[in-house]
Amino acid sequence: MSPSGATTELPDRLTVDELRDTWSLLSPEDRLLAFKMVPYEDAEEFFLSLSARDQANLLEALPPTERRGWVRLLPPDDAADAVQETGPDLREELVHLLDDATRKEVVALLAYKEDQAGGLMDPRFARVRPDMSVDEGIGYLRKQAREYVGTLRYLYVLDDHQHLLGVVTLRGLFSSPPEKRVQDIMRTDVVTATADMDQEALSRLFAQHSLNAIPIVDGEGRMQGIVTVDDIVDVVQEEATEDIQKLGGMEALDAPYMQVGFLSMVRKRGSWLSALFLGEMLTATAMGYFQDEIARAVVLALFVPLIISSGGNSGSQATTLVIRAMALGEVTLRDWFRVIRRELMAGLALGTLLGTIGFLRIEIWQAFSPIYGPHAILIAWTVFVSLIGVVTFGTLAGSLLPFVLRRLRLDPASASAPFVATLVDVTGLVIYFTVASMVLRGRLL
Amino acid sequence: MSPSGATTELPDRLTVDELRDTWSLLSPEDRLLAFKMVPYEDAEEFFLSLSARDQANLLEALPPTERRGWVRLLPPDDAADAVQETGPDLREELVHLLDDATRKEVVALLAYKEDQAGGLMDPRFARVRPDMSVDEGIGYLRKQAREYVGTLRYLYVLDDHQHLLGVVTLRGLFSSPPEKRVQDIMRTDVVTATADMDQEALSRLFAQHSLNAIPIVDGEGRMQGIVTVDDIVDVVQEEATEDIQKLGGMEALDAPYMQVGFLSMVRKRGSWLSALFLGEMLTATAMGYFQDEIARAVVLALFVPLIISSGGNSGSQATTLVIRAMALGEVTLRDWFRVIRRELMAGLALGTLLGTIGFLRIEIWQAFSPIYGPHAILIAWTVFVSLIGVVTFGTLAGSLLPFVLRRLRLDPASASAPFVATLVDVTGLVIYFTVASMVLRGRLL
Repeated sequence: MSPSGATTELPDRLTVDELRDTWSLLSPEDRLLAFKMVPYEDAEEFFLSLSARDQANLLEALPPTERRGWVRLLPPDDAADAVQETGPDLREELVHLLDDATRKEVVALLAYKEDQAGGLMDPRFARVRPDMSVDEGIGYLRKQAREYVGTLRYLYVLDDHQHLLGVVTLRGLFSSPPEKRVQDIMRTDVVTATADMDQEALSRLFAQHSLNAIPIVDGEGRMQGIVTVDDIVDVVQEEATEDIQKLGGMEALDAPYMQVGFLSMVRKRGSWLSALFLGEMLTATAMGYFQDEIARAVVLALFVPLIISSGGNSGSQATTLVIRAMALGEVTLRDWFRVIRRELMAGLALGTLLGTIGFLRIEIWQAFSPIYGPHAILIAWTVFVSLIGVVTFGTLAGSLLPFVLRRLRLDPASASAPFVATLVDVTGLVIYFTVASMVLRGRLL
Repeated sequence: MSPSGATTELPDRLTVDELRDTWSLLSPEDRLLAFKMVPYEDAEEFFLSLSARDQANLLEALPPTERRGWVRLLPPDDAADAVQETGPDLREELVHLLDDATRKEVVALLAYKEDQAGGLMDPRFARVRPDMSVDEGIGYLRKQAREYVGTLRYLYVLDDHQHLLGVVTLRGLFSSPPEKRVQDIMRTDVVTATADMDQEALSRLFAQHSLNAIPIVDGEGRMQGIVTVDDIVDVVQEEATEDIQKLGGMEALDAPYMQVGFLSMVRKRGSWLSALFLGEMLTATAMGYFQDEIARAVVLALFVPLIISSGGNSGSQATTLVIRAMALGEVTLRDWFRVIRRELMAGLALGTLLGTIGFLRIEIWQAFSPIYGPHAILIAWTVFVSLIGVVTFGTLAGSLLPFVLRRLRLDPASASAPFVATLVDVTGLVIYFTVASMVLRGRLL
C-alpha cells in the first residue's frame, strides 16, 4: 500500500484521532496516504490544526490538481506562513491558486520577515464607524461575519481613511444601550504595534498589558491588521525553544527534533562543539605552562576537574538566570550593575560553601588514609581558596556575558552554559595553579 | 516622601506609562506610593494588567479599608490567583471581601492546585440552549453580556442539566440565517479537558488542536468553565522558565529574578551546586587511581580538561535537545529507541570530528615546538580515540537520562547540562586513562 512497499502497514480507514496519534511517526508519503484515509470533514479540521511546516509538506506531497482546494481553506495569515515554508518552486504556484482577494493579502504578508509582527498579522478584522449606534454596529457586524471577518472579540473603530480611532470589545457593544453611539463607548488609549516589530518584543507587549489582540498600524496610524494572542503562544514556544537550544551550546535547530535532517543537526551541533573545543585547547596550553608544578606535585592534578567544573557549573547557573530574565523583560541593559553586584555576592557565598565542602572532604579523607601526603592541609587550603576564586569568577562571567552580548546587539542566549564553562575552565586553571604556587611555595613546589 | 526616608524620589503625579516603566525598579512601599499617583481610571487598568503576584503584593501593601474595591475589580479566576499569592492571614480576609457570587466561585477555584487546569478556569462563559433560534441566541447573548459573561468568542450549548452538547462560534452564530436552530449549526466534536489536568498537558492540547478556548467538564460531561488561550501564554512562559532554570543546573526560582530573595536564591543554587560538587569529587578519586600514570607521563594531565569538557559539552547538547522535544510533545517515552539510535550516530560523528581536530592540533604544534616529547604521535592517537569514546558516551548519556527520569516519573529537565557533565567527567577520565594505558603501554607508561 505504501509506495516504498516495505514501510508501515496501514488500515483502510482511519479516525482523525488515530491520524493525530501516528502523525509524527509517519514518513511524508505515508502521511499523505493516512491523511486521505480520514473522512473529508475531519481531514479539513485536521489540516487546519497542523503547523505551517506540516501544511506545506502536505501541500507539496499532494498531486498538483488537488492543491487548490486545500490551500484555499487557509486564512490569509496561515496561507502566507504555509507558503513561506514550501520550496521556492511551489511558492509561486500556491500563491497563484488563491482567490484574488486572499492572494493580494498573502503577497503583502509575504513581504514581512517571518519573525516580525507583520508576519503574524491577520489583515481581516471587525470594524465599525464611530458614529454608528450600538444596534447599527451589531447589525454591521453580522454582515461582516457573513463575508470575511476573522476574529470578533474586538471591534476597531476606523474613520474614512482607515485611521484607528479606538476599540470596542464585543462585550462592551453587547452590554451597552442600543441607541448609544460607538464613539461614546470606545476606548481611545489603544496599545498598537507596527508591522516591523520583532515578534519577541511583540510577545512582551502582550504580556505587559494582558491583551488578547493588538492592532497593527502604519506610520500614519492607519490600521493594517491584528495579531491575536493565540499566535503569540506559538511565538513564545518557538523563542523559548531557540533560547534553550542555544543555552545547551548549539545553533537553534529551527525544526522539530524528530524531523530535522541528521546532517543539518550534526552541522549545527558540530560547529559549536568545534568552536568550544578550540577554546578549550587553551586549557592544554595553560596546563602546559604549569607542567613543572604538576611534575613536582602530582596531587595537584587530581583536583583539576573538580575545581574547573565547579566554576563551569556556577557560571551555567548565572548565565541561565540572566538570559531568561532578559528574555522575559525582567532585566534590561540598565540593570547590569544591580545584577552584577547581586551575582558577586552570590558567587562569594556559593564559593565559600563549595570551598568548605572541598576543604572538609580532603581533611576527612586524609584522616583515614593519608593519600594526599604530608602537606594535605596545604592542599586543602589551596582547594578552599581556589574554589572561592573560581566560583566567584564563574558566577560573574556568567552574569556579565549576556549583558556584553546584548550591548553588542548579539543574542544574549549565545552565552551558553558550555561557552561560559569553557571560558571559566581556562581562567579556573590559572587561578588554581596561581593559588597553589603561593600556598605551596617552599613546601611542595 | 517614601516611608524609609532615603529611597527613590518620586514626582507628584505619574502617567501610567511612567508607572509601568519604573515598576520593576521600585520597592513594595514605593510601588504603592507610585500606584496612587496615577489617575484612578488608569490605575484600574494597570492593576488588572499586573501579574497575580504583583496584585497580591499591592493588596497586601494597601490599608485594609482600601482593599475591597481593588479585589472586587478582578474576575473570579484572576481573584483566585491573586488570593493564592498572598500570605495565609490575608487570604481569608480577601475572600471575605468579595461579593457572594464571586466568593463562591473563588472558593471553588482555590480547591485546585495552581498548575492544574481548574486553576486556570474561568467559571463564566457564554451559553445558549440547543433549541433556540440564531436570533434568539444573539438576543440571549446580549442579556448575558450585560450581566456576567466572561469571553464571547465561543458559545457553549448546554442542556437543562449543564451537560455540554456542542459549541458554536460567535462568527458561526452571526453568519447563519436568523431562523436556523442552534443545534443545527453547532459542532458536537468538542475537545474538552477536566479540571485536574496538568497545565503543561493542557497547553499541549491547545497547541495540538490550534484552539482558542477549551471547556472544562466534570466526569459526567457537565460544563464547569473554560480556559482561554491567553492564560496559556503565561503557562507556556512559566513552564519554559522552569525548564530553562533546571537545565542550567538549579532549582526553578518560581519568581522573577529581581524579586526573588537573595537567601532563597542562594539556597536553590547552592543545593544543586553542592550535589554536583559531591558527584564531581569522584573525578579526584578517579584521577587518584591513575596517579602513577600521571607521575610517569605528566603530559597526559595536560589534556584532561579538554577531553572531559568535550564530553560535557556534547552531553549538554543532547540532553537539551531531548528535554525540549519532550516538553513540546515532539518526543515521547516510546520514541526512546529511535532517539538513542540517532544520538549514537550523532555522537560518533561529532566525536570523530573533535578527535580529528585534536589529533591535528597536537601534530601541528609538535612540528613547530616538540613540547609533547618523543611520543607525541602516540599522545595524539590517545586523544583521538578518547575523544570519540568520550563524546559518544556524553551524547548517549545526555539523550538517555531524560528518558530514564521520565520513566521514573521525575521531571526530565532535572537531567541538566551540569548534571550530565558531571556524570560524563568521571566516565571521561576513566575512558581517557584506559585508552592511554593501552596505547602508551611499554612506551611512556
